[in-house]
Amino acid sequence: MNLTSYTQTATFGPSHREVEIGQITELTPKEPFALDCGARITRFPIAFQTYGELNADKSNAILVCHGLTGDQYAASAHPVTGKPGWWQDMIGPGKPMDTERYFVICTNVIGGCMGSWGPKSVDPETGETYALSFPVITVHDMVRAQLELINRLGIEQLFAVIGGSMGGMQALIWAAEYPRRVFAAMPIATAARHSAQNIAFHEIGRQAVMADPDWQGGQYLQAKTYPSKGLAVARMTAHVTYLSEHALGQKFGRRLQDKEVRDFSFEPDFQVESYLRHQGRSFVERFDPNAYLYITRAMDYFDLAADYGGNLSAAFARSPVRFCVVSFSSDWCFPTSESRALVRAINAAAANVSFTEINTDKGHDAFLLDVPEFKAVMHGFLRGCANARGLPYD
Amino acid sequence: MNLTSYTQTATFGPSHREVEIGQITELTPKEPFALDCGARITRFPIAFQTYGELNADKSNAILVCHGLTGDQYAASAHPVTGKPGWWQDMIGPGKPMDTERYFVICTNVIGGCMGSWGPKSVDPETGETYALSFPVITVHDMVRAQLELINRLGIEQLFAVIGGSMGGMQALIWAAEYPRRVFAAMPIATAARHSAQNIAFHEIGRQAVMADPDWQGGQYLQAKTYPSKGLAVARMTAHVTYLSEHALGQKFGRRLQDKEVRDFSFEPDFQVESYLRHQGRSFVERFDPNAYLYITRAMDYFDLAADYGGNLSAAFARSPVRFCVVSFSSDWCFPTSESRALVRAINAAAANVSFTEINTDKGHDAFLLDVPEFKAVMHGFLRGCANARGLPYD
Repeated sequence: MNLTSYTQTATFGPSHREVEIGQITELTPKEPFALDCGARITRFPIAFQTYGELNADKSNAILVCHGLTGDQYAASAHPVTGKPGWWQDMIGPGKPMDTERYFVICTNVIGGCMGSWGPKSVDPETGETYALSFPVITVHDMVRAQLELINRLGIEQLFAVIGGSMGGMQALIWAAEYPRRVFAAMPIATAARHSAQNIAFHEIGRQAVMADPDWQGGQYLQAKTYPSKGLAVARMTAHVTYLSEHALGQKFGRRLQDKEVRDFSFEPDFQVESYLRHQGRSFVERFDPNAYLYITRAMDYFDLAADYGGNLSAAFARSPVRFCVVSFSSDWCFPTSESRALVRAINAAAANVSFTEINTDKGHDAFLLDVPEFKAVMHGFLRGCANARGLPYD
Repeated sequence: MNLTSYTQTATFGPSHREVEIGQITELTPKEPFALDCGARITRFPIAFQTYGELNADKSNAILVCHGLTGDQYAASAHPVTGKPGWWQDMIGPGKPMDTERYFVICTNVIGGCMGSWGPKSVDPETGETYALSFPVITVHDMVRAQLELINRLGIEQLFAVIGGSMGGMQALIWAAEYPRRVFAAMPIATAARHSAQNIAFHEIGRQAVMADPDWQGGQYLQAKTYPSKGLAVARMTAHVTYLSEHALGQKFGRRLQDKEVRDFSFEPDFQVESYLRHQGRSFVERFDPNAYLYITRAMDYFDLAADYGGNLSAAFARSPVRFCVVSFSSDWCFPTSESRALVRAINAAAANVSFTEINTDKGHDAFLLDVPEFKAVMHGFLRGCANARGLPYD
């Protein structure tokens, strides 16, 4: 790849520890572009990881788009947590995104906290961390930034754009805005617009972060503080929405934590409480509080039909893209009804769309978990598209 | 009534303003009783309101049990907010709980903040506000305290015990533990045990309160602070769970707040955000943060079957009580499946039970809202029970 990449460190967690994050490149769009809020972008860093090899005619690239708290480490160890990539089950030799066949690219979204241009970046004009002076971005802006990278890599057409949740929103925007640049799109566990309930839960998370005095009006890096408690509450809230009631019941029920009887205190009595506290604590070590505000806001703003005069179907008019829409039966955050609405709109544009609802009790998080039927659907869809695209598939 | 009642003031909201709360009486159980945690009660205040007149043979008393953030002001103006009673639609002349027929009693639960014995009370041993030295109580303890009042009023058998959500839990305990003291029971929008998901949302609320430095380890009254932000986040979270996704979508959708376009900030852009912030703000004016911790904890501990060797049906063995179980179709906090499990258990004890699922999009909050079918069900059930009990009904 003809990219000058570098590594740099970024600050993570309450102890403000510096961690080296991998491959970042500086992009300078040929034509500076405007963000949806009006701010103009001339030069920005984007962090990304790749898996597999780009073939000679650059026809085998898959862009993987991450969700709210994901990052570019889709199939390699996370530099902060050391944990395996979040889609390790899906990307690799012999896996649905077979790295012996495809070249998989995953970028950290702008607004994020893993090296791409975000609120933790330094504003070149002031020499200070942006914090809340970072512009409020949209999912469209994230996609515009990705497009710059794809251009820079010289890829005329992505073989596929795949993502779950907010990643699915990105896949939809790619297909709608740049239909000639995408052969196939797989929006998973997502919706064409963020619902009032989802906005409500995001607003609660933001309020929890901003209520923490250690947030310091967003200046916690400068103030050497960290809104751990607020961010943990935000994460706990979001996390419950990602699980199904059934899964929570199955996993924890009313089982007590390391004790035989209730201890009549406000310490965790139930396993589900300990689990949630753990989720909150581990999240604050790896994710940036301001990035959480910006990315939730971007999701709230997402409403694809609004860009097409309120007609969702118009977003897909004359689209040559092959779509595979996937939902999970127990996902109450992005329920199947949202995917059906999407499929109806794509159908109404007479575009090529298949739809699968995967029967699972794992809730919204199912797209990140080992769900064999889901794997099989992705495998099959990509194989079929590879045939249609004329990619070698033995 | 042969009760010495008095009024007193209590402290409310961030400004610690003193508000007079009505009728409170001091109860001195003949036999001091033990709370579930082991603490012994000899004397405690209980605040209550009554509507209608107790008849000569004391056979027309209905005990109304309030939910998590309710109080004794079921059918009269709230002294802090000035708003009408929370069940004003249900209690009054010609209403389902017809005050020309029935004598309606509503107590503030112990652990609460409207005059009954709770964390805001003064500990007679220290002369200080209890705060976190108040014992962790259970829903059973709340019922034991109510029983003392009913004894003191000389009521041998309540005509009915009625309540929604946590009030429904109280109704179930009354019927299970004191079956000769209750003629009819109406548990509404409730469950025989608190689910893992509900515990999870409560834990988030508690964490939000306790994360607020102005909570001061529970000593905010002494410290002259107030955890407004934390309590508001807790309320916002709970509030979303009380509404259905559909209702939120219908009520707010993605409509913007007093503006034509998104303003690319973290101020409320969407109506649903403004609404939630308002809910949070108004709640902190009327409810006590520590009481919120104690009452959510009591609900989490609720598991009726656990008191009967894990067999819910045993709770209703040989019960003479007439039950009417009500659920609401869009209630995802206490879904119909929970009511069905309850009905199956009551049926398995061959007790007298009717069951209605009300079709509504109003979510868990439906029990507090004007839902004509629900009103009709309560009206009909009480009329039938009045006939069976031999109460005059023209």
